[in-house]
Amino acid sequence: MPHDSATKTAAMVVIGNEILSGKVTDSNSPFLAKELRAAGVSLERIAVIPDEIALIGSTVADFAALFDFVFTSGGVGPTHDDMTMDGVACGFGVPVVEHVELREMIARAVSGSLTESHLKMAQIPEGAELVGDHEHFPTVRMRNVFVLPGIPEIFEAKIRGLRDRFAGDPYYLRQILVSVSETRIADFLNETLAAFPELMLGSYPKFANEEYSVRLTLESKNEDYLEAALADLMARMPESYIVEVVR
Amino acid sequence: MPHDSATKTAAMVVIGNEILSGKVTDSNSPFLAKELRAAGVSLERIAVIPDEIALIGSTVADFAALFDFVFTSGGVGPTHDDMTMDGVACGFGVPVVEHVELREMIARAVSGSLTESHLKMAQIPEGAELVGDHEHFPTVRMRNVFVLPGIPEIFEAKIRGLRDRFAGDPYYLRQILVSVSETRIADFLNETLAAFPELMLGSYPKFANEEYSVRLTLESKNEDYLEAALADLMARMPESYIVEVVR
Repeated sequence: MPHDSATKTAAMVVIGNEILSGKVTDSNSPFLAKELRAAGVSLERIAVIPDEIALIGSTVADFAALFDFVFTSGGVGPTHDDMTMDGVACGFGVPVVEHVELREMIARAVSGSLTESHLKMAQIPEGAELVGDHEHFPTVRMRNVFVLPGIPEIFEAKIRGLRDRFAGDPYYLRQILVSVSETRIADFLNETLAAFPELMLGSYPKFANEEYSVRLTLESKNEDYLEAALADLMARMPESYIVEVVR
Repeated sequence: MPHDSATKTAAMVVIGNEILSGKVTDSNSPFLAKELRAAGVSLERIAVIPDEIALIGSTVADFAALFDFVFTSGGVGPTHDDMTMDGVACGFGVPVVEHVELREMIARAVSGSLTESHLKMAQIPEGAELVGDHEHFPTVRMRNVFVLPGIPEIFEAKIRGLRDRFAGDPYYLRQILVSVSETRIADFLNETLAAFPELMLGSYPKFANEEYSVRLTLESKNEDYLEAALADLMARMPESYIVEVVR
Protein backbone atom coordinates (compact mmCIF):
# COMPACT_ATOMS: atom_id res chain seq x y z
CA MET A 1 0.00 0.00 0.00
CA PRO A 2 1.21 3.56 -0.55
CA HIS A 3 3.22 4.83 2.41
CA ASP A 4 6.08 7.21 3.04
CA SER A 5 9.55 5.90 3.67
CA ALA A 6 9.35 6.56 7.42
CA THR A 7 6.38 4.22 7.79
CA LYS A 8 7.26 0.74 9.01
CA THR A 9 5.90 -2.19 7.02
CA ALA A 10 4.82 -5.67 8.08
CA ALA A 11 3.62 -9.01 6.77
CA MET A 12 1.78 -11.87 8.42
CA VAL A 13 2.13 -15.59 7.83
CA VAL A 14 -0.74 -17.75 9.08
CA ILE A 15 0.33 -21.38 9.29
CA GLY A 16 -2.33 -24.02 9.47
CA ASN A 17 -4.19 -26.64 7.49
CA GLU A 18 -7.17 -26.07 9.79
CA ILE A 19 -7.69 -22.58 8.30
CA LEU A 20 -7.25 -23.69 4.69
CA SER A 21 -9.60 -26.63 5.18
CA GLY A 22 -12.29 -24.39 6.66
CA LYS A 23 -12.35 -26.05 10.10
CA VAL A 24 -11.24 -22.94 11.93
CA THR A 25 -11.81 -19.28 11.00
CA ASP A 26 -8.64 -17.27 11.48
CA SER A 27 -9.31 -14.33 13.79
CA ASN A 28 -5.64 -13.47 14.31
CA SER A 29 -5.07 -11.75 10.97
CA PRO A 30 -8.06 -9.35 11.36
CA PHE A 31 -6.88 -8.64 14.90
CA LEU A 32 -3.29 -7.99 13.82
CA ALA A 33 -4.44 -5.83 10.88
CA LYS A 34 -6.32 -3.53 13.26
CA GLU A 35 -3.51 -3.46 15.83
CA LEU A 36 -0.86 -2.62 13.24
CA ARG A 37 -3.02 0.11 11.72
CA ALA A 38 -3.59 1.65 15.14
CA ALA A 39 0.18 1.51 15.66
CA GLY A 40 0.87 3.28 12.35
CA VAL A 41 2.38 0.20 10.69
CA SER A 42 1.47 -0.67 7.09
CA LEU A 43 0.50 -4.35 6.77
CA GLU A 44 1.49 -5.30 3.22
CA ARG A 45 0.74 -9.02 2.96
CA ILE A 46 -1.09 -11.87 4.67
CA ALA A 47 -0.21 -15.39 3.54
CA VAL A 48 -2.12 -18.43 4.76
CA ILE A 49 -0.07 -21.56 4.08
CA PRO A 50 -0.08 -25.27 5.02
CA ASP A 51 2.05 -26.92 7.72
CA GLU A 52 5.06 -27.53 5.46
CA ILE A 53 8.57 -26.74 6.62
CA ALA A 54 10.10 -25.63 3.30
CA LEU A 55 7.11 -23.44 2.43
CA ILE A 56 7.04 -21.84 5.87
CA GLY A 57 10.76 -21.17 5.49
CA SER A 58 10.62 -19.59 2.05
CA THR A 59 7.54 -17.50 2.86
CA VAL A 60 8.96 -16.17 6.12
CA ALA A 61 12.40 -15.48 4.62
CA ASP A 62 10.92 -13.67 1.60
CA PHE A 63 8.75 -11.46 3.80
CA ALA A 64 11.58 -10.85 6.30
CA ALA A 65 13.71 -9.46 3.45
CA LEU A 66 10.90 -7.26 2.07
CA PHE A 67 9.32 -5.81 5.21
CA ASP A 68 10.34 -4.39 8.59
CA PHE A 69 8.41 -6.92 10.66
CA VAL A 70 6.99 -10.39 10.09
CA PHE A 71 4.44 -12.02 12.39
CA THR A 72 3.68 -15.72 12.22
CA SER A 73 0.60 -17.36 13.72
CA GLY A 74 0.24 -21.06 14.51
CA GLY A 75 2.23 -24.26 14.40
CA VAL A 76 4.22 -23.85 17.63
CA GLY A 77 2.74 -26.59 19.82
CA PRO A 78 4.10 -30.05 20.65
CA THR A 79 2.36 -32.16 17.99
CA HIS A 80 3.31 -33.58 14.59
CA ASP A 81 1.67 -30.69 12.71
CA ASP A 82 3.58 -27.97 14.58
CA MET A 83 6.37 -27.11 12.16
CA THR A 84 6.80 -23.37 12.42
CA MET A 85 10.08 -23.41 14.39
CA ASP A 86 11.60 -25.84 11.90
CA GLY A 87 10.21 -23.75 9.05
CA VAL A 88 11.63 -20.45 10.32
CA ALA A 89 15.00 -22.10 10.98
CA CYS A 90 14.94 -23.55 7.46
CA GLY A 91 14.16 -20.13 5.99
CA PHE A 92 17.17 -18.56 7.70
CA GLY A 93 19.46 -21.55 7.08
CA VAL A 94 20.06 -22.38 10.75
CA PRO A 95 19.30 -25.48 12.84
CA VAL A 96 16.75 -25.61 15.66
CA VAL A 97 18.44 -25.87 19.04
CA GLU A 98 17.25 -26.26 22.60
CA HIS A 99 16.80 -22.92 24.36
CA VAL A 100 17.93 -23.38 27.97
CA GLU A 101 15.71 -20.69 29.48
CA LEU A 102 12.68 -21.96 27.58
CA ARG A 103 13.34 -25.52 28.72
CA GLU A 104 13.52 -24.32 32.31
CA MET A 105 10.25 -22.41 31.96
CA ILE A 106 8.53 -25.52 30.59
CA ALA A 107 9.98 -27.65 33.38
CA ARG A 108 8.63 -25.22 36.00
CA ALA A 109 5.21 -25.22 34.30
CA VAL A 110 4.77 -28.99 34.07
CA SER A 111 6.24 -29.90 37.48
CA GLY A 112 7.29 -33.39 36.43
CA SER A 113 9.64 -35.13 34.07
CA LEU A 114 9.84 -33.68 30.58
CA THR A 115 8.55 -35.84 27.73
CA GLU A 116 9.69 -35.65 24.14
CA SER A 117 6.70 -33.43 23.41
CA HIS A 118 7.70 -30.97 26.13
CA LEU A 119 11.25 -30.89 24.84
CA LYS A 120 10.00 -30.16 21.31
CA MET A 121 8.54 -26.91 22.64
CA ALA A 122 11.97 -25.79 23.87
CA GLN A 123 13.48 -26.13 20.39
CA ILE A 124 13.80 -22.81 18.55
CA PRO A 125 15.89 -21.54 15.63
CA GLU A 126 19.54 -20.96 16.49
CA GLY A 127 20.03 -17.24 17.10
CA ALA A 128 16.41 -16.62 18.11
CA GLU A 129 15.71 -14.89 21.43
CA LEU A 130 12.83 -14.52 23.86
CA VAL A 131 11.17 -11.10 23.97
CA GLY A 132 8.17 -9.60 25.75
CA ASP A 133 6.98 -10.59 29.20
CA HIS A 134 9.26 -13.53 29.97
CA GLU A 135 7.36 -14.79 32.96
CA HIS A 136 3.96 -15.17 31.33
CA PHE A 137 4.04 -14.64 27.60
CA PRO A 138 7.54 -14.77 26.17
CA THR A 139 7.63 -14.58 22.38
CA VAL A 140 10.28 -16.14 20.17
CA ARG A 141 11.85 -13.56 17.86
CA MET A 142 14.16 -14.60 15.04
CA ARG A 143 15.71 -11.44 13.57
CA ASN A 144 12.67 -9.37 12.46
CA VAL A 145 10.24 -12.31 12.72
CA PHE A 146 7.93 -12.68 15.71
CA VAL A 147 6.78 -16.30 16.09
CA LEU A 148 3.36 -16.44 17.74
CA PRO A 149 0.96 -19.25 18.63
CA GLY A 150 -2.36 -19.66 16.82
CA ILE A 151 -4.61 -19.74 19.89
CA PRO A 152 -6.36 -16.35 19.64
CA GLU A 153 -6.34 -15.48 23.35
CA ILE A 154 -2.58 -15.98 23.55
CA PHE A 155 -1.84 -14.43 20.15
CA GLU A 156 -3.71 -11.28 21.15
CA ALA A 157 -2.09 -11.01 24.58
CA LYS A 158 1.35 -11.35 23.03
CA ILE A 159 0.72 -8.75 20.33
CA ARG A 160 -0.47 -6.28 22.96
CA GLY A 161 2.68 -6.98 24.97
CA LEU A 162 4.91 -6.40 21.92
CA ARG A 163 3.27 -3.15 20.80
CA ASP A 164 6.15 -0.89 21.89
CA ARG A 165 8.50 -2.88 19.66
CA PHE A 166 6.71 -2.00 16.40
CA ALA A 167 4.55 1.10 17.00
CA GLY A 168 5.20 4.28 14.97
CA ASP A 169 3.35 7.48 14.00
CA PRO A 170 -0.42 7.03 13.65
CA TYR A 171 -2.55 7.25 10.52
CA TYR A 172 -5.26 9.92 10.43
CA LEU A 173 -8.62 8.83 9.01
CA ARG A 174 -11.65 10.67 7.65
CA GLN A 175 -14.67 8.95 6.14
CA ILE A 176 -17.45 10.13 3.85
CA LEU A 177 -20.67 8.11 3.59
CA VAL A 178 -22.21 8.61 0.17
CA SER A 179 -25.78 7.98 -1.00
CA VAL A 180 -25.04 7.19 -4.67
CA SER A 181 -23.30 4.32 -6.45
CA GLU A 182 -19.54 4.14 -7.09
CA THR A 183 -19.97 4.78 -10.81
CA ARG A 184 -21.36 8.27 -10.08
CA ILE A 185 -18.43 9.35 -7.92
CA ALA A 186 -15.51 7.53 -9.55
CA ASP A 187 -14.51 10.57 -11.63
CA PHE A 188 -14.44 12.83 -8.55
CA LEU A 189 -12.21 10.35 -6.73
CA ASN A 190 -9.79 10.26 -9.65
CA GLU A 191 -9.64 14.06 -9.77
CA THR A 192 -8.91 14.35 -6.05
CA LEU A 193 -6.24 11.64 -6.32
CA ALA A 194 -4.61 13.52 -9.20
CA ALA A 195 -4.43 16.62 -6.97
CA PHE A 196 -3.39 14.65 -3.83
CA PRO A 197 -1.37 11.68 -5.07
CA GLU A 198 -0.14 10.74 -1.57
CA LEU A 199 -3.69 10.34 -0.25
CA MET A 200 -4.73 6.81 0.72
CA LEU A 201 -8.26 6.71 -0.67
CA GLY A 202 -10.61 3.75 -0.37
CA SER A 203 -14.08 3.27 -1.84
CA TYR A 204 -16.23 0.51 -0.34
CA PRO A 205 -19.74 -0.16 -1.64
CA LYS A 206 -22.23 -1.47 0.89
CA PHE A 207 -24.66 -4.02 -0.48
CA ALA A 208 -28.39 -3.43 0.04
CA ASN A 209 -27.81 -0.81 2.71
CA GLU A 210 -30.45 1.87 3.42
CA GLU A 211 -28.19 4.29 5.27
CA TYR A 212 -25.55 4.80 2.57
CA SER A 213 -24.28 3.19 -0.65
CA VAL A 214 -20.54 3.75 -0.49
CA ARG A 215 -18.08 4.41 2.30
CA LEU A 216 -15.08 6.49 1.29
CA THR A 217 -12.00 6.35 3.50
CA LEU A 218 -9.30 9.03 3.31
CA GLU A 219 -6.05 8.46 5.19
CA SER A 220 -2.67 10.06 5.66
CA LYS A 221 -0.01 10.39 8.33
CA ASN A 222 -0.06 14.15 7.57
CA GLU A 223 -3.22 15.59 9.08
CA ASP A 224 -3.05 18.93 7.20
CA TYR A 225 -2.65 17.13 3.88
CA LEU A 226 -5.60 14.91 4.78
CA GLU A 227 -7.85 17.86 5.61
CA ALA A 228 -6.94 19.59 2.34
CA ALA A 229 -7.71 16.42 0.36
CA LEU A 230 -11.01 16.00 2.19
CA ALA A 231 -12.00 19.59 1.39
CA ASP A 232 -11.02 19.07 -2.24
CA LEU A 233 -13.18 15.97 -2.61
CA MET A 234 -16.13 17.51 -0.76
CA ALA A 235 -16.04 20.52 -3.09
CA ARG A 236 -16.23 18.27 -6.17
CA MET A 237 -19.24 16.20 -5.09
CA PRO A 238 -22.83 17.49 -5.19
CA GLU A 239 -23.90 18.13 -1.59
CA SER A 240 -26.91 15.82 -1.99
CA TYR A 241 -24.57 12.82 -2.43
CA ILE A 242 -23.12 13.19 1.05
CA VAL A 243 -24.84 11.37 3.91
CA GLU A 244 -22.25 12.01 6.59
CA VAL A 245 -18.62 12.95 7.16
CA VAL A 246 -16.99 10.93 9.93
CA ARG A 247 -13.93 12.50 11.61
CA MET B 1 -1.69 -30.06 2.37
CA PRO B 2 -1.33 -33.80 1.77
CA HIS B 3 -3.69 -35.00 -0.93
CA ASP B 4 -3.81 -37.70 -3.56
CA SER B 5 -3.15 -36.84 -7.18
CA ALA B 6 -6.85 -37.06 -8.10
CA THR B 7 -7.71 -34.27 -5.67
CA LYS B 8 -8.08 -30.85 -7.25
CA THR B 9 -6.19 -27.99 -5.65
CA ALA B 10 -7.00 -24.30 -5.32
CA ALA B 11 -5.64 -20.98 -4.13
CA MET B 12 -7.32 -17.71 -3.23
CA VAL B 13 -6.11 -14.16 -3.77
CA VAL B 14 -7.84 -11.50 -1.68
CA ILE B 15 -7.18 -8.06 -3.14
CA GLY B 16 -7.75 -5.04 -0.99
CA ASN B 17 -6.06 -2.42 1.12
CA GLU B 18 -9.22 -2.31 3.24
CA ILE B 19 -8.48 -5.80 4.58
CA LEU B 20 -4.78 -5.16 5.20
CA SER B 21 -5.54 -1.87 6.95
CA GLY B 22 -8.07 -3.51 9.25
CA LYS B 23 -11.08 -1.51 8.05
CA VAL B 24 -12.92 -4.55 6.74
CA THR B 25 -12.74 -8.15 7.96
CA ASP B 26 -12.53 -10.56 5.05
CA SER B 27 -15.34 -13.10 5.26
CA ASN B 28 -14.85 -14.42 1.73
CA SER B 29 -11.81 -16.57 2.44
CA PRO B 30 -13.42 -18.44 5.38
CA PHE B 31 -16.52 -18.93 3.22
CA LEU B 32 -14.50 -20.22 0.25
CA ALA B 33 -12.39 -22.48 2.50
CA LYS B 34 -15.55 -24.21 3.76
CA GLU B 35 -17.13 -24.42 0.29
CA LEU B 36 -14.02 -25.92 -1.29
CA ARG B 37 -13.62 -28.44 1.52
CA ALA B 38 -17.25 -29.51 1.15
CA ALA B 39 -16.60 -29.87 -2.60
CA GLY B 40 -13.53 -32.08 -2.01
CA VAL B 41 -11.05 -29.43 -3.24
CA SER B 42 -7.81 -28.84 -1.33
CA LEU B 43 -7.26 -25.10 -0.70
CA GLU B 44 -3.48 -24.69 -0.60
CA ARG B 45 -2.90 -20.93 -0.21
CA ILE B 46 -4.65 -17.70 0.68
CA ALA B 47 -2.80 -14.48 -0.16
CA VAL B 48 -4.07 -11.07 0.91
CA ILE B 49 -2.36 -8.37 -1.13
CA PRO B 50 -2.71 -4.62 -1.82
CA ASP B 51 -4.37 -3.04 -4.86
CA GLU B 52 -1.24 -3.10 -7.04
CA ILE B 53 -1.39 -4.28 -10.63
CA ALA B 54 2.03 -5.95 -10.90
CA LEU B 55 1.65 -7.74 -7.58
CA ILE B 56 -1.87 -8.96 -8.44
CA GLY B 57 -0.48 -10.19 -11.75
CA SER B 58 2.48 -12.10 -10.36
CA THR B 59 0.49 -13.62 -7.49
CA VAL B 60 -2.36 -14.79 -9.72
CA ALA B 61 -0.01 -16.13 -12.41
CA ASP B 62 2.13 -18.02 -9.86
CA PHE B 63 -0.93 -19.64 -8.29
CA ALA B 64 -2.52 -20.39 -11.68
CA ALA B 65 0.59 -22.38 -12.62
CA LEU B 66 0.73 -24.28 -9.31
CA PHE B 67 -2.92 -25.13 -8.67
CA ASP B 68 -6.00 -26.30 -10.54
CA PHE B 69 -8.18 -23.31 -9.65
CA VAL B 70 -7.56 -19.76 -8.50
CA PHE B 71 -10.25 -17.53 -7.01
CA THR B 72 -9.77 -13.80 -6.62
CA SER B 73 -11.87 -11.58 -4.37
CA GLY B 74 -12.18 -7.81 -4.69
CA GLY B 75 -11.01 -4.95 -6.86
CA VAL B 76 -13.50 -5.32 -9.72
CA GLY B 77 -15.62 -2.17 -9.34
CA PRO B 78 -15.48 1.11 -11.26
CA THR B 79 -13.19 3.17 -9.00
CA HIS B 80 -9.48 4.07 -8.97
CA ASP B 81 -8.62 1.28 -6.51
CA ASP B 82 -10.23 -1.48 -8.61
CA MET B 83 -7.22 -3.01 -10.36
CA THR B 84 -7.90 -6.73 -10.45
CA MET B 85 -8.75 -6.97 -14.17
CA ASP B 86 -5.59 -5.05 -15.08
CA GLY B 87 -3.62 -7.20 -12.65
CA VAL B 88 -4.89 -10.52 -14.03
CA ALA B 89 -4.26 -9.33 -17.59
CA CYS B 90 -0.75 -8.27 -16.58
CA GLY B 91 -0.09 -11.67 -15.01
CA PHE B 92 -1.03 -13.47 -18.23
CA GLY B 93 0.68 -10.94 -20.49
CA VAL B 94 -2.47 -9.82 -22.32
CA PRO B 95 -4.22 -6.43 -22.59
CA VAL B 96 -7.63 -5.64 -21.11
CA VAL B 97 -10.26 -5.28 -23.80
CA GLU B 98 -13.92 -4.34 -23.87
CA HIS B 99 -16.20 -7.38 -23.63
CA VAL B 100 -19.19 -6.71 -25.90
CA GLU B 101 -21.69 -8.86 -24.01
CA LEU B 102 -20.62 -7.37 -20.67
CA ARG B 103 -20.98 -3.85 -22.04
CA GLU B 104 -24.50 -4.65 -23.22
CA MET B 105 -25.42 -6.10 -19.83
CA ILE B 106 -24.18 -2.95 -18.10
CA ALA B 107 -26.07 -0.75 -20.60
CA ARG B 108 -29.30 -2.66 -19.88
CA ALA B 109 -28.73 -2.35 -16.13
CA VAL B 110 -28.07 1.40 -16.04
CA SER B 111 -30.70 2.43 -18.64
CA GLY B 112 -28.89 5.59 -19.65
CA SER B 113 -25.70 6.73 -21.31
CA LEU B 114 -22.57 4.89 -20.23
CA THR B 115 -19.98 6.89 -18.32
CA GLU B 116 -16.26 6.17 -18.27
CA SER B 117 -16.80 4.36 -14.96
CA HIS B 118 -19.43 2.08 -16.51
CA LEU B 119 -17.16 1.33 -19.42
CA LYS B 120 -14.31 0.41 -17.03
CA MET B 121 -16.48 -2.41 -15.73
CA ALA B 122 -16.78 -3.89 -19.24
CA GLN B 123 -12.99 -4.15 -19.58
CA ILE B 124 -11.65 -7.66 -18.94
CA PRO B 125 -8.44 -9.53 -19.84
CA GLU B 126 -8.25 -10.54 -23.50
CA GLY B 127 -9.23 -14.19 -23.77
CA ALA B 128 -11.36 -14.17 -20.61
CA GLU B 129 -14.94 -15.40 -20.80
CA LEU B 130 -18.16 -15.09 -18.82
CA VAL B 131 -19.26 -18.21 -16.94
CA GLY B 132 -22.07 -19.04 -14.53
CA ASP B 133 -25.54 -17.52 -14.58
CA HIS B 134 -25.15 -14.87 -17.29
CA GLU B 135 -28.36 -13.02 -16.57
CA HIS B 136 -27.77 -12.34 -12.91
CA PHE B 137 -24.31 -13.28 -11.75
CA PRO B 138 -21.89 -13.81 -14.61
CA THR B 139 -18.32 -14.42 -13.46
CA VAL B 140 -15.22 -13.52 -15.43
CA ARG B 141 -12.96 -16.54 -15.90
CA MET B 142 -9.44 -16.14 -17.26
CA ARG B 143 -8.06 -19.64 -17.93
CA ASN B 144 -8.22 -21.36 -14.49
CA VAL B 145 -8.78 -18.07 -12.61
CA PHE B 146 -12.24 -17.04 -11.41
CA VAL B 147 -12.41 -13.29 -10.85
CA LEU B 148 -14.96 -12.47 -8.15
CA PRO B 149 -16.11 -9.26 -6.47
CA GLY B 150 -15.34 -8.57 -2.82
CA ILE B 151 -18.90 -7.81 -1.68
CA PRO B 152 -19.69 -10.92 0.40
CA GLU B 153 -23.32 -11.38 -0.71
CA ILE B 154 -22.29 -11.42 -4.38
CA PHE B 155 -19.10 -13.41 -3.81
CA GLU B 156 -21.05 -16.14 -2.03
CA ALA B 157 -23.84 -16.27 -4.63
CA LYS B 158 -21.29 -16.60 -7.42
CA ILE B 159 -19.32 -19.37 -5.67
CA ARG B 160 -22.53 -21.34 -5.12
CA GLY B 161 -23.37 -20.90 -8.81
CA LEU B 162 -19.92 -22.13 -9.88
CA ARG B 163 -19.81 -25.20 -7.64
CA ASP B 164 -20.31 -27.73 -10.46
CA ARG B 165 -17.22 -26.34 -12.17
CA PHE B 166 -14.82 -27.29 -9.37
CA ALA B 167 -16.46 -29.96 -7.19
CA GLY B 168 -14.86 -33.40 -6.83
CA ASP B 169 -14.96 -36.38 -4.44
CA PRO B 170 -15.70 -35.41 -0.84
CA TYR B 171 -13.43 -35.65 2.19
CA TYR B 172 -14.55 -37.88 5.06
CA LEU B 173 -14.06 -36.46 8.55
CA ARG B 174 -13.98 -37.95 12.04
CA GLN B 175 -13.21 -35.99 15.19
CA ILE B 176 -12.07 -36.98 18.66
CA LEU B 177 -12.50 -34.56 21.55
CA VAL B 178 -9.82 -35.18 24.15
CA SER B 179 -9.69 -34.15 27.83
CA VAL B 180 -5.91 -33.88 28.21
CA SER B 181 -3.27 -31.51 26.83
CA GLU B 182 -1.51 -31.95 23.48
CA THR B 183 1.78 -32.91 25.12
CA ARG B 184 0.14 -36.06 26.57
CA ILE B 185 -1.17 -37.33 23.24
CA ALA B 186 1.53 -36.15 20.82
CA ASP B 187 3.34 -39.51 20.86
CA PHE B 188 0.11 -41.41 20.06
CA LEU B 189 -0.55 -39.10 17.12
CA ASN B 190 2.94 -39.69 15.77
CA GLU B 191 2.53 -43.47 16.07
CA THR B 192 -0.78 -43.45 14.21
CA LEU B 193 0.68 -41.23 11.51
CA ALA B 194 3.58 -43.63 11.09
CA ALA B 195 1.08 -46.44 10.52
CA PHE B 196 -1.26 -44.32 8.35
CA PRO B 197 0.95 -41.84 6.53
CA GLU B 198 -1.83 -40.72 4.16
CA LEU B 199 -4.09 -39.67 7.03
CA MET B 200 -4.79 -35.93 7.33
CA LEU B 201 -4.52 -35.46 11.08
CA GLY B 202 -5.09 -32.17 12.87
CA SER B 203 -4.67 -31.35 16.56
CA TYR B 204 -6.32 -28.15 17.82
CA PRO B 205 -6.06 -27.11 21.46
CA LYS B 206 -9.00 -25.18 22.85
CA PHE B 207 -8.06 -22.47 25.33
CA ALA B 208 -9.78 -22.45 28.73
CA ASN B 209 -12.52 -24.82 27.60
CA GLU B 210 -14.39 -26.97 30.13
CA GLU B 211 -15.79 -29.49 27.67
CA TYR B 212 -12.53 -30.67 26.11
CA SER B 213 -8.86 -29.62 25.78
CA VAL B 214 -7.95 -30.71 22.26
CA ARG B 215 -9.95 -31.42 19.12
CA LEU B 216 -8.40 -34.04 16.85
CA THR B 217 -9.53 -34.12 13.23
CA LEU B 218 -8.94 -37.17 11.03
CA GLU B 219 -9.63 -36.90 7.32
CA SER B 220 -9.30 -38.92 4.15
CA LYS B 221 -11.06 -39.36 0.84
CA ASN B 222 -10.92 -43.11 1.53
CA GLU B 223 -13.52 -43.91 4.19
CA ASP B 224 -12.19 -47.41 4.99
CA TYR B 225 -8.68 -46.07 5.46
CA LEU B 226 -10.09 -43.34 7.73
CA GLU B 227 -11.99 -45.83 9.89
CA ALA B 228 -8.89 -48.00 10.25
CA ALA B 229 -6.79 -44.99 11.27
CA LEU B 230 -9.44 -43.89 13.76
CA ALA B 231 -9.53 -47.36 15.32
CA ASP B 232 -5.72 -47.38 15.49
CA LEU B 233 -5.55 -44.04 17.33
CA MET B 234 -8.42 -44.92 19.68
CA ALA B 235 -6.64 -48.15 20.63
CA ARG B 236 -3.49 -46.24 21.57
CA MET B 237 -5.10 -43.65 23.84
CA PRO B 238 -6.31 -44.40 27.39
CA GLU B 239 -10.10 -44.47 27.32
CA SER B 240 -10.28 -41.80 30.03
CA TYR B 241 -8.73 -39.23 27.67
CA ILE B 242 -11.61 -39.43 25.21
CA VAL B 243 -14.57 -37.09 25.75
CA GLU B 244 -16.38 -37.81 22.50
CA VAL B 245 -15.97 -39.23 19.01
CA VAL B 246 -17.78 -37.18 16.36
CA ARG B 247 -18.66 -38.99 13.13
